[in-house]
Amino acid sequence: MPYINIQVTDENVTKNQKRQLIEGVTQLLVDVLDKNPKTTHVVIQEVPIDNWGFDSKQYSETKKQ
Amino acid sequence: MPYINIQVTDENVTKNQKRQLIEGVTQLLVDVLDKNPKTTHVVIQEVPIDNWGFDSKQYSETKKQ
Amino acid sequence: MPYINIQVTDENVTKNQKRQLIEGVTQLLVDVLDKNPKTTHVVIQEVPIDNWGFDSKQYSETKKQ
Amino acid sequence: MPYINIQVTDENVTKNQKRQLIEGVTQLLVDVLDKNPKTTHVVIQEVPIDNWGFDSKQYSETKKQ
Amino acid sequence: MPYINIQVTDENVTKNQKRQLIEGVTQLLVDVLDKNPKTTHVVIQEVPIDNWGFDSKQYSETKKQ
Amino acid sequence: MPYINIQVTDENVTKNQKRQLIEGVTQLLVDVLDKNPKTTHVVIQEVPIDNWGFDSKQYSETKKQ
Repeated sequence: MPYINIQVTDENVTKNQKRQLIEGVTQLLVDVLDKNPKTTHVVIQEVPIDNWGFDSKQYSETKKQ
Repeated sequence: MPYINIQVTDENVTKNQKRQLIEGVTQLLVDVLDKNPKTTHVVIQEVPIDNWGFDSKQYSETKKQ
Repeated sequence: MPYINIQVTDENVTKNQKRQLIEGVTQLLVDVLDKNPKTTHVVIQEVPIDNWGFDSKQYSETKKQ
Repeated sequence: MPYINIQVTDENVTKNQKRQLIEGVTQLLVDVLDKNPKTTHVVIQEVPIDNWGFDSKQYSETKKQ
Repeated sequence: MPYINIQVTDENVTKNQKRQLIEGVTQLLVDVLDKNPKTTHVVIQEVPIDNWGFDSKQYSETKKQ
Repeated sequence: MPYINIQVTDENVTKNQKRQLIEGVTQLLVDVLDKNPKTTHVVIQEVPIDNWGFDSKQYSETKKQ
């Protein structure tokens, strides 16, 4: 524990940015809840922009505006 | 809020069908729970047919029958 | 298939409202993707209002404003 | 890795049954994919029977039939 | 977007700690991916210690050692 | 019910291994909780090795050591 799932739109997130997300969220769980980094798992899921919607619209359309 | 995750098999769901799913499920949350579309997020995840199983069988095999 | 996970804040959603969500989202998957209701699973997760945040704020605090 | 999420209806699953699920699914990942038990996390989520639906019906209703 | 799901064991996480997790992870997504806090949703799920396992053991048992 | 989500790193899991995971975890739910295979759904999600982190490190880096 813990397990953290980060879902973002698939918009060319670089390897280095993923590394920063993993390091940052792990450190946050250490700082706030004193969790052990060795048992802290982070999974980043990249979602195609046609597949994410909010405000009733597909993000691929919202993005064009 | 809310967040709605729709998992379907990866069988050529079109962009337009995804739009209908996003619109439809958002409207459902407005109608039933009076939620705000602006904070209603919908994510569609498409799962390869080898990766989905029910009745102990891979859907890629079930589909052939 | 499909599997639909609906996450909402824990604010006294009634049994009848849950029934409407289940019926509504199942019908949507039938209408849009011609899915079989018998293999369409819907799970509603109710999240305590301290446990949901957006715009950097806990919804339990946002709600007071 | 891996992370396994088991969602079942909240119908008095005992502590011992949960232990068997954790042991069994971990062993499966060892046997099939040679995964390391030390980094294999299992989370069991128990869902109220009003909150699970399939075949367009709430399981709390299906169960009465 | 994004949506971040934080699963931790149910061990008396305080309201204030949850606030810190929400603020911290939202700020991380702003810093690393320049995301908009207004559309960044964070959900914290607290899992009973009988329901979390790793290294083939229930955390409720591991904790006693 | 139940629904089981298995997240593993994307490291050439074969079709046959996926079949074994589906069969094995379904049988486990039958054996331990007497569940019906016909309503037991299994989804396998393969996560790129840059996208999985534990012990504060990207698995793609850990793997090189």
